[in-house]
Amino acid sequence: MVRLIALYSQPDDTDAFDEHYRDVHAPIVSRYPKVRDIRLTKLAGVAGRAAPYYLMAEMAFDSYDDLDEALSSEAGAASARDLRNFASAGVTLFVAPETPAEPIEAD
Amino acid sequence: MVRLIALYSQPDDTDAFDEHYRDVHAPIVSRYPKVRDIRLTKLAGVAGRAAPYYLMAEMAFDSYDDLDEALSSEAGAASARDLRNFASAGVTLFVAPETPAEPIEAD
Repeated sequence: MVRLIALYSQPDDTDAFDEHYRDVHAPIVSRYPKVRDIRLTKLAGVAGRAAPYYLMAEMAFDSYDDLDEALSSEAGAASARDLRNFASAGVTLFVAPETPAEPIEAD
Repeated sequence: MVRLIALYSQPDDTDAFDEHYRDVHAPIVSRYPKVRDIRLTKLAGVAGRAAPYYLMAEMAFDSYDDLDEALSSEAGAASARDLRNFASAGVTLFVAPETPAEPIEAD
């Protein structure tokens, strides 16, 4: 499983952001071919500090090939274009392969 | 499930970072009381851009109370103190509650 992770910076107008994400962006992302799971999480701060990002979107694929296929699909291009419509505060994108860097066990 | 997420910025010396994380920091984090799962992922970029972070650590707890207990524990204080020893490039911390902001389904 490979995750594409998008971290959205705090928008000026959270209601407008939420509405656009729900009504426009999420339907585009849900058209990604071979996307296995989409998880959206509104983030919270730690130890009294505000969260540096507002929303985390985790999009899971079975493989890097499936992820590449999604990004180069019509839906992938449309989702990239749509960012300017609601994510002007910024979005940080990266890929999290499933393989742990250094497997460690909790006690 | 509540996740504490730490995103480590790219270190100057990745070998030294990895060694310190594995030999010193991970054993401290594994002492967090009630931590259910620890997942470490080295991150990759998207569409030819470098990843903005080097390593993601996801630490899962059953509840916010358990997370608070971990952060205020001896291990929590020790892990915070240890950051200066290997994370001088920076670390971004936030909490991801499990509840989706807007549940959506993949096609």
